[in-house]
Amino acid sequence: MATFKLTLEYDGGGLVGWQRQRSGASIQALVEDAAAALDGRRVAATAAGRTDAGVHALGQVVGLALERAIEAPALVKALNARLPDSVRVVAAAEVPSSFHARFDARSKTYRYRIWNAEIASPFERRYAWHIGGALDVAAMDRAAGVLCGRRDFAAFQAAGRVPASSVRHVMASSVARGERSLITYDVIADGFLRHMVRNIVGTLVEVGRRRRPPEWMAEVLASRDRSRAGQTAPPEGLFLMRVEYNARFQASPSGTLNVA
Amino acid sequence: MATFKLTLEYDGGGLVGWQRQRSGASIQALVEDAAAALDGRRVAATAAGRTDAGVHALGQVVGLALERAIEAPALVKALNARLPDSVRVVAAAEVPSSFHARFDARSKTYRYRIWNAEIASPFERRYAWHIGGALDVAAMDRAAGVLCGRRDFAAFQAAGRVPASSVRHVMASSVARGERSLITYDVIADGFLRHMVRNIVGTLVEVGRRRRPPEWMAEVLASRDRSRAGQTAPPEGLFLMRVEYNARFQASPSGTLNVA
Repeated sequence: MATFKLTLEYDGGGLVGWQRQRSGASIQALVEDAAAALDGRRVAATAAGRTDAGVHALGQVVGLALERAIEAPALVKALNARLPDSVRVVAAAEVPSSFHARFDARSKTYRYRIWNAEIASPFERRYAWHIGGALDVAAMDRAAGVLCGRRDFAAFQAAGRVPASSVRHVMASSVARGERSLITYDVIADGFLRHMVRNIVGTLVEVGRRRRPPEWMAEVLASRDRSRAGQTAPPEGLFLMRVEYNARFQASPSGTLNVA
Repeated sequence: MATFKLTLEYDGGGLVGWQRQRSGASIQALVEDAAAALDGRRVAATAAGRTDAGVHALGQVVGLALERAIEAPALVKALNARLPDSVRVVAAAEVPSSFHARFDARSKTYRYRIWNAEIASPFERRYAWHIGGALDVAAMDRAAGVLCGRRDFAAFQAAGRVPASSVRHVMASSVARGERSLITYDVIADGFLRHMVRNIVGTLVEVGRRRRPPEWMAEVLASRDRSRAGQTAPPEGLFLMRVEYNARFQASPSGTLNVA
């Protein structure tokens, strides 16, 4: 048995998300089936981030164990030959058998992309949230900064869910103007609640539209009440950019944003 | 009657190209049908460049005349409300009734995008030609420069076609490395033969792969023989970037490349 750490890119449009579902193509099923065809037996794949339907990845990390002896570069080729072109393994590295893609992750970086122009872009419709009206990026960035630190993010978790703890450590949270009409929200944390980034973005957009002042973010956070936050931003703007591990697992290169 | 010059962006994937066909969605049919719904009668639209199936545009220019009195900004909104989100009117300007989008065009700029990395990108699969092996960009650029000037481009026209003249004036022709794994070919000319840019790119890639020296380009050009040139590069890498007119028609802003 050898355990591998894979780095994946995928265009989440048309996929049902990471987790295997009863119907629809999930990234987990695609990767597990490709690995099973290679290994001649069922293979279980574990991802660092269980991305939702429509969410993209440039640096998802997946762990799996194979019985067949294979070198990492050959594994990349063999898996890509069996995966659809919307999903690519961009790197593989053999790691200790104790490796767990989710539990060993030290931090994850997500990027949310907003296309802020009166007229939507045909080329960004699958990779950004189109917002036609003016957005106050400086106010959004001030509100985003409020989230840094070890906080209870219950106000931003998916409605109806009650995880063991909603406390997470956010190391970076900022909004900036990108090229052309692009606005990006970048967030790094030790973990994320379901829909957390998209709920934060929906809240930031309320501030950007000047319906709420930047100080409102602190109120929403303190309330721990999902109904106080903004709408859930659509999935097509969200990218899992990279996953950081401690040095012994940090072998493979992380993804770069190809569409920006 | 008022004549309008429209600037269009479109994602050509899934479209049969500019020209109306018996089956499949053409940009011409989409624009003419949207304008007809607005004007209550048939409307004919003429494009600067009759882009092929799968080819994209960031600055296509289209001319059409309407009986209904409407201001340019309202026309943009009304047409976009009727067009699919893969096609956007990004600007409109009223022009003299003598305006002809194709015959009055002084020059057109095309960009061809190559994604040159061992592993294809899920985010570039629709917007670039994936070439896995190494490409000598300096050699490609030298070969591209050979095409500048007033030349007979018969060697690069679509097989089987015999236009009145295959002489065109190329004002700029160069290859450069872009961000990450991107290589771009930019070409400006007073007009283009059918498949000309894609046939040039197929020829440039032969040079890039070092199967031919840069000097081969001059031989191919001089031969005026289509069978001497390289393969026709796939349509998904090609973008009509902008169309230039003389001052009196140069009202609307031209497109910028959103995907690069």
